Amino acid sequence: MTETTTPPRTMRWNGGPDGSLTMIDQTLLPVEFKEINCRTVEEVWEAIKMLRVRGAPAIGCAAAYGVIIGVQGEGVSADRQAFNAKLKQVTDYLAESRPTAVNLFWALDRMKAVAQENSSFSPNEIHARLLEEAQAIEVEDREMCAAIGQHGATLIEQGTGILTHCNAGGLATAGDGTALSVMFAAAAQGKDIHVYADETRPLLQGARLTTWELQQRGVPVTLICDSMAGQVMKEKRVQAVITGADRIAANGDACNKIGTYSVAVLAKAHGIPFYVAAPSSTFDLSLATGDQIPIEERMSEEITAGMGKQTAPDETNVYNPAFDVAPAELIEAIITEKGIISPVTTENVAAMLK
Amino acid sequence: MTETTTPPRTMRWNGGPDGSLTMIDQTLLPVEFKEINCRTVEEVWEAIKMLRVRGAPAIGCAAAYGVIIGVQGEGVSADRQAFNAKLKQVTDYLAESRPTAVNLFWALDRMKAVAQENSSFSPNEIHARLLEEAQAIEVEDREMCAAIGQHGATLIEQGTGILTHCNAGGLATAGDGTALSVMFAAAAQGKDIHVYADETRPLLQGARLTTWELQQRGVPVTLICDSMAGQVMKEKRVQAVITGADRIAANGDACNKIGTYSVAVLAKAHGIPFYVAAPSSTFDLSLATGDQIPIEERMSEEITAGMGKQTAPDETNVYNPAFDVAPAELIEAIITEKGIISPVTTENVAAMLK
Repeated sequence: MTETTTPPRTMRWNGGPDGSLTMIDQTLLPVEFKEINCRTVEEVWEAIKMLRVRGAPAIGCAAAYGVIIGVQGEGVSADRQAFNAKLKQVTDYLAESRPTAVNLFWALDRMKAVAQENSSFSPNEIHARLLEEAQAIEVEDREMCAAIGQHGATLIEQGTGILTHCNAGGLATAGDGTALSVMFAAAAQGKDIHVYADETRPLLQGARLTTWELQQRGVPVTLICDSMAGQVMKEKRVQAVITGADRIAANGDACNKIGTYSVAVLAKAHGIPFYVAAPSSTFDLSLATGDQIPIEERMSEEITAGMGKQTAPDETNVYNPAFDVAPAELIEAIITEKGIISPVTTENVAAMLK
Repeated sequence: MTETTTPPRTMRWNGGPDGSLTMIDQTLLPVEFKEINCRTVEEVWEAIKMLRVRGAPAIGCAAAYGVIIGVQGEGVSADRQAFNAKLKQVTDYLAESRPTAVNLFWALDRMKAVAQENSSFSPNEIHARLLEEAQAIEVEDREMCAAIGQHGATLIEQGTGILTHCNAGGLATAGDGTALSVMFAAAAQGKDIHVYADETRPLLQGARLTTWELQQRGVPVTLICDSMAGQVMKEKRVQAVITGADRIAANGDACNKIGTYSVAVLAKAHGIPFYVAAPSSTFDLSLATGDQIPIEERMSEEITAGMGKQTAPDETNVYNPAFDVAPAELIEAIITEKGIISPVTTENVAAMLK
């Protein structure tokens, strides 16, 4: 039986409405464990933009707390009109930090709705209610992770090798993660599992974060390069693939870290089930299919000088999409906190989410 | 029309039988262009082992010249028995530098055969004949590259996007390369092509070498991470995949840099032809299928600290196979200097090589 322990928390709020947000700076892992303390909304925005905090659910939580920080200040709290203007400015600003993660918009919309519902109260009272809402988002996120773990673990048999891509772990949420929560739950049930972690170029979230989290919790993990996933499948080292998702369309097409699409195609070719683990907040039912999901393109330097060392000639032309979409037909099941969606169809997605 | 120019030579021999071997240190590219001059067989062995020279045909040439260097010395040339003993020791030693590249053994066998055929001559005369043989291997390599380019270019239409993996370019041979020779030849024929180069983790031969070579010769190239190959295919940016090979079994199963298998599976799933470009010396007809090809496993540090910076936690468990095998059924054609093998079957391979 694999013993699991509790790793450090991805984020925590300090104090009341005038408090601050402490987060692990994930860009420094695994070499350095350092926390940052955000006292301005610009610091929260920068932390999201620069991936100090990343993973769709964690971004949602961080953005909610970012709103609390953004509307702090005496000038704001003294005047209802100033408060409302500031709230709009802050939510618009935070919405621009990362274009793909739907949880970001979902969390900001929840915050705006709470402000709207409580608009008859004073700015200070609204501010207090907003903090309650941000904390509720965080608590729900922990509960969501735990529920995904419990549902997903039913799919994992004793002795399973599991491939994962990027980091859909506790670091990507306020709780135990999504894809990794399934692994933690399976291990906690006494199932011997072995995880193969794609390093996940260009930013190496798999190498830096997934291996770190699994090691912290005593789950056996082997690190591979992304290009080795096919070989690991061919050698029958893995019997399941589980990834997270950043946005899921109404038909179940799942947008996730670049490389997920390739892994899904490879899994299908090897007859290995490909599972997506994601909370219901990841679904964007306004999009019929994944074709409509905007894909963020990131800086070429992530590829040409990703480790702080130049690895390609000067002025090399680069294509650096940050995400791709695994189409529903390649997904065996989507594991949500409400239950398991399988087969993945528009009807089954709608039924689970209603 | 894309203009092509001649890049620096991968290797050159200086002088007669007592000469030395100058090679580009490919581990320093693209940041630094530096040549190394090998005067001992240990230096040649180290250059092969540490990938200062890499690519199956180039390794073969370097090993042949390594034999010349290894049997230098007065004590050796004065005594036939000492010469024969030294020759055996040197060829055995060089054979252990890289386990997978069949051209290494092929070149060493050619050298041993020449020594055998000329065993009635004096050591000095045999030494001179061996140098002629090493130079013949190099010249044949250049001609082989040119022929592969001409055959392969017939498969490439105007406006084709071509994905390649690792570096099967001039740097991998003494001439224009294998897979890249096809691209250089197509470009020289006036076809507008655009190459997508997989960076090729862990050692980044694609980022460091393929982009450099294509830029040196004016062929448009876009660098991507290995995990993006599927997405680039899905977006219809490429209409062909061409890679090199390190060893090809009698049935056409092709062993090449790790990640090639994944690319071959992805190409098949997208209906894109997957071509292998390799000289006939790459075939190992003693192996019925690719299952029998030994796969070199390399140091974990290539993955955990590949760019000189630690990217995974201390003591992370790593799986680092250097090669994988693209099975014949995924290969649309094998482009050799003798012609194009398609469909790829044991019969067609045998017919082309006879």
